[in-house]
Amino acid sequence: MRPIEAKAISAIRVLSADTVQKANSGHPGMPIGAAPTAYAIWSDMRHDPKDPAWFGRDRFVLSSGHASSLLYSLLHFYGYGITIEDMQNFRQFGSRTPGHPEFGHTVAVEATTGPLGQGFAMAVGMAMAEAHMAAIFNKEGFPVVDNYTYVLMGDGCMMEGVSYEAASLAGTQKLNKLIAVYDSNCITIEGSTDITFTENVAGRFTAMGWQVIDVENGEDTVSISLALEEARIETEKPSLIIVHTDIAHGTLKQGSAAAHGSPLGEDVIADMRKKLGWKNPPFDIPEDVYAHFEALSQRGVRVHNEYNAMFEAYKEAYPELAAKLAAWRNGDIPESLSSDEAMFAADAPKATRSCGGIVLNRLFAAMPNMFGGSADLAPSNNTELKGTPFFSPEQREGCNIHFGVRELAMACISNGIALYGGLRAFCATFFVFSDYIKPALRLSALMKLPVTYICTHDSIGVGEDGPTHQPIEQLAALRATPNVYVFRPADQKETAYSYLASLKLSAPSVMALSRQNLPQLADTSDKAMLGGYILRDPKGTADVILMASGSEVELIYKAADMLAVRGYTARLVSIPCMELFRSQSREYQESVLPSDIRARVSVEAGATQPWGAYVGLDGASVGLDHFGASAKASILFDKFGITAEAVAEAALTVIAANK
Amino acid sequence: MRPIEAKAISAIRVLSADTVQKANSGHPGMPIGAAPTAYAIWSDMRHDPKDPAWFGRDRFVLSSGHASSLLYSLLHFYGYGITIEDMQNFRQFGSRTPGHPEFGHTVAVEATTGPLGQGFAMAVGMAMAEAHMAAIFNKEGFPVVDNYTYVLMGDGCMMEGVSYEAASLAGTQKLNKLIAVYDSNCITIEGSTDITFTENVAGRFTAMGWQVIDVENGEDTVSISLALEEARIETEKPSLIIVHTDIAHGTLKQGSAAAHGSPLGEDVIADMRKKLGWKNPPFDIPEDVYAHFEALSQRGVRVHNEYNAMFEAYKEAYPELAAKLAAWRNGDIPESLSSDEAMFAADAPKATRSCGGIVLNRLFAAMPNMFGGSADLAPSNNTELKGTPFFSPEQREGCNIHFGVRELAMACISNGIALYGGLRAFCATFFVFSDYIKPALRLSALMKLPVTYICTHDSIGVGEDGPTHQPIEQLAALRATPNVYVFRPADQKETAYSYLASLKLSAPSVMALSRQNLPQLADTSDKAMLGGYILRDPKGTADVILMASGSEVELIYKAADMLAVRGYTARLVSIPCMELFRSQSREYQESVLPSDIRARVSVEAGATQPWGAYVGLDGASVGLDHFGASAKASILFDKFGITAEAVAEAALTVIAANK
Repeated sequence: MRPIEAKAISAIRVLSADTVQKANSGHPGMPIGAAPTAYAIWSDMRHDPKDPAWFGRDRFVLSSGHASSLLYSLLHFYGYGITIEDMQNFRQFGSRTPGHPEFGHTVAVEATTGPLGQGFAMAVGMAMAEAHMAAIFNKEGFPVVDNYTYVLMGDGCMMEGVSYEAASLAGTQKLNKLIAVYDSNCITIEGSTDITFTENVAGRFTAMGWQVIDVENGEDTVSISLALEEARIETEKPSLIIVHTDIAHGTLKQGSAAAHGSPLGEDVIADMRKKLGWKNPPFDIPEDVYAHFEALSQRGVRVHNEYNAMFEAYKEAYPELAAKLAAWRNGDIPESLSSDEAMFAADAPKATRSCGGIVLNRLFAAMPNMFGGSADLAPSNNTELKGTPFFSPEQREGCNIHFGVRELAMACISNGIALYGGLRAFCATFFVFSDYIKPALRLSALMKLPVTYICTHDSIGVGEDGPTHQPIEQLAALRATPNVYVFRPADQKETAYSYLASLKLSAPSVMALSRQNLPQLADTSDKAMLGGYILRDPKGTADVILMASGSEVELIYKAADMLAVRGYTARLVSIPCMELFRSQSREYQESVLPSDIRARVSVEAGATQPWGAYVGLDGASVGLDHFGASAKASILFDKFGITAEAVAEAALTVIAANK
Repeated sequence: MRPIEAKAISAIRVLSADTVQKANSGHPGMPIGAAPTAYAIWSDMRHDPKDPAWFGRDRFVLSSGHASSLLYSLLHFYGYGITIEDMQNFRQFGSRTPGHPEFGHTVAVEATTGPLGQGFAMAVGMAMAEAHMAAIFNKEGFPVVDNYTYVLMGDGCMMEGVSYEAASLAGTQKLNKLIAVYDSNCITIEGSTDITFTENVAGRFTAMGWQVIDVENGEDTVSISLALEEARIETEKPSLIIVHTDIAHGTLKQGSAAAHGSPLGEDVIADMRKKLGWKNPPFDIPEDVYAHFEALSQRGVRVHNEYNAMFEAYKEAYPELAAKLAAWRNGDIPESLSSDEAMFAADAPKATRSCGGIVLNRLFAAMPNMFGGSADLAPSNNTELKGTPFFSPEQREGCNIHFGVRELAMACISNGIALYGGLRAFCATFFVFSDYIKPALRLSALMKLPVTYICTHDSIGVGEDGPTHQPIEQLAALRATPNVYVFRPADQKETAYSYLASLKLSAPSVMALSRQNLPQLADTSDKAMLGGYILRDPKGTADVILMASGSEVELIYKAADMLAVRGYTARLVSIPCMELFRSQSREYQESVLPSDIRARVSVEAGATQPWGAYVGLDGASVGLDHFGASAKASILFDKFGITAEAVAEAALTVIAANK
């Protein structure tokens, strides 16, 4: 190693430690231990600090998000615009250097990380996106989509189930341009990893079809660089490079769990400075270090210039492909969609999962950049895209993905696909299993990624599979999650309009779709895109407002008929998306649900919690605050009182009480 | 194989197929393919159909819960009281044979399964419980706790991340009495497992420290039995037996994904009957088959009798241990607890996670059958039990568990521990990561297991770690889940009473505890056990009700002072557990929240959804319907308006509106 390289690595270490110390909060251990590894990766990486969004760049994901000071140090030194002042504001309100890296908030952060293992799985998604788009866009001599995806991960990532799920799929898919670097420092919060994690990680990844390269000494950047090169030339398998390091290497807290999540302390840092021969005070970096990183970043600028020249020639040679790539990257949504009659047409009762399958394929016809699939439930979720194969090592152009029975990895991979750029990611499972995907859906929401989560079998309508498969609380859980739009359409039209509305959002959408057949309703319309709207209104003021979503909209019609016989009138309101409804003007919301009509009844085959704010203290919610059971769906609705009769009865009660 | 054995296996196959066919719903493929495997396991298993709750029995978990007809067939043939009529009512409302096996609903079902992989992880928990209790209770010549745990799993279980997490821990813990049998039929719903699952399962488990035994022919019960024997005599490692089978073996749908989740059809079954030489009509089983199973079950009766004799001698030799075992199994809760002053005493401000740590250790002093730990966050969760080591191969008596960074497996294992009997399971992580444990917490709730989920760092009070680590929607999500009791105590007293209340529940509890210090409140009391109660009330009718939970209870006191300055009076209500509050009489609830006081303000540092039903259309909720940020906690509360000022302001608004 050249002296300036050693000095650059020391600079990363000292700056990371000082940053955590100044904030008096953070994780100094891994940044110090993994500094040589990160330095080696970034030295070889194709990236251009002057254009962080360059599509041809290699992707780097810090799966161990707690080591954020390491990433920020790199961004600082490489000239990404993270200043010393930003470093000094580490973890402070509004700073560009939050506790864990946040995509969309800090330049060049490729993914929000922190929940362990997810960064690794997102990297798998990025590598899948790269392979898919390369197959579509690259031409002989024009590798316009051609990058590696690097991910740096730690022991915690390795223990999380999602890392196994994602690694297994990556091996099957032979994602040879995925390079995972495992900072194996053998320390977690509770102590040595031996206490709970003794598996042979090399054996595990080998069994999953990966190339595994071991680097014994984490200080040896030459070996790390050679390993990276070996990984890059591999043509069949993803690579795992295991780098053996010490947490807080070279400090008095080396090898100690105490170095994981707390500042090292002034004296430990002073001692570290001494050992490194580091004279400069905190946040004062020698000029030759900056010069060295500037030289490194110039490599990226050169490669970028070459890429640009190649891309100009590509535009001339393949103008249509170049235009398509631009449109995909831009996220263009064809205007033709809203006039696509085939999306809305339906004359017979139909499950909304079937409606969704139709809509999805109409969207695909207009937006061939869709890329997604199901966690082994495509035939039930109705999510197979027609006329395109399944993505595989032999058919990289396939737009369908077999995710396997791996819901969480599926969702993380979808995030990775969305982060890569150019593609519209979707994924699918039974609604009850949205529980499994939730940790990643939360990251979709934090990152405001337009991933579509297709969740069919959305209530006790599941029937005989019983309570383990019947969602109850999932609507409430996801509606309570910020930035998530939960759609529960009632028929073909509402399904189509839900999808159309979702396309306009910079946020994830959940499509909660029925297993069972539902009637096509005359009154549903494009107003569904407002989130909530009046389906039918009596002359004069209604005696009661009946509101519902999805499969229960049918019931409020029947209940209204029953009430009519008793001489009462009802306004019927469909609320396919509470979040959209709440984003409308107060006037509009008031026009649908006037404050002075207190007799209100909601009905939804799920937990009543989300409806409390709509029915208030004077209304009533017909719903399910207990688990389901195994039986025919129709019997369950009947036995559990999700019926028009129950709605009518509740309406009579609230009408009387509000007289 | 003797002819009667072959016939018995055919009987399982035919009955399973007929059962699914009659219901016109279910999964016949695996029951048929795995029938010889299941037969071999059950032939050697230590169990007594006359006493399904016999503590000394081997445990059997069907992790592939969809193969429920296989389990029900076994329970029928072995004389567990599942009748032919029960089989004919498969998947019907109220039947004892629901779509997926349900613990507590059907005799001898050791765990509710269906969500794939969880059964396997619960089996790991059972094996840990066995090892732990064996270390505590067994004496030379008296192996009173001494059973194997068998789990039958399929390809889907293998793909789920939780199976890797649990397997990794089982390997580290050297759970040699755990025997997993993998029915490898290479078919999932979307087709051959090759499309998405090409890993070398043997290599994976070997890397995790398991013994792996391969059985090439799933029809060869002799080889399966030999493999089981090999697994039983292994003293160092858990065992995986890979049995290569065909889905729907021997039928026209053999090897087809179509056989997974739909009835085979009358003609396929007719053909199957022909090939098996099976003359009897559906649900009519030859007498010699019953006689054969009766003979098999007699083995269990004999072993049980031997066990009983041994246990009688144990009672004489070790009366105290025997009494302790009885008390543990009975779930006795010492009455002394509620008078344990040390649980309630606190004079200084303290984080409720610290309060929880004190309470947990006081409980442990009285209930040494506690067994649990954290997903690598014990120092932060304050969950380490003092005076007992960590459970390990060398120290099986340790009551603390290092779960590793494996939240979902931790929760499944806790379910397994609770299912085993005799122990009180608890587990811990950051509250935001309750998202990861949710799929298993849902099974705790379905099974009504008293597992305690300790979830610290329960709001933006997390501070600098930022939005990935700050729960927002988790309170709403868990409160919407049936059978789950979410406690969010405000101080030391409420923490203690929350734990005491949780001990009385046949249901899982979630303890949402603060990271940050909270004041000790004068008015908190044992009324916390009612779920919600009046802390302070003005003379006469209050102008407004202020309600809160946990860390925000402090704020309503301050807000009340501000309102007093303006001449308004407030009733202060603490709601540490909404579920308990709702379980009180309507009169009590009305006494705390009278219908005629419409001016109501709630405050909680989380999503407002759960409070809609409490504040109604005329009140207001101060909360967080967006994500947090990285900064000091105090700054976040201020910036996001979770303040006494905001509560007072909201109160003034609602007081004015309700005049």
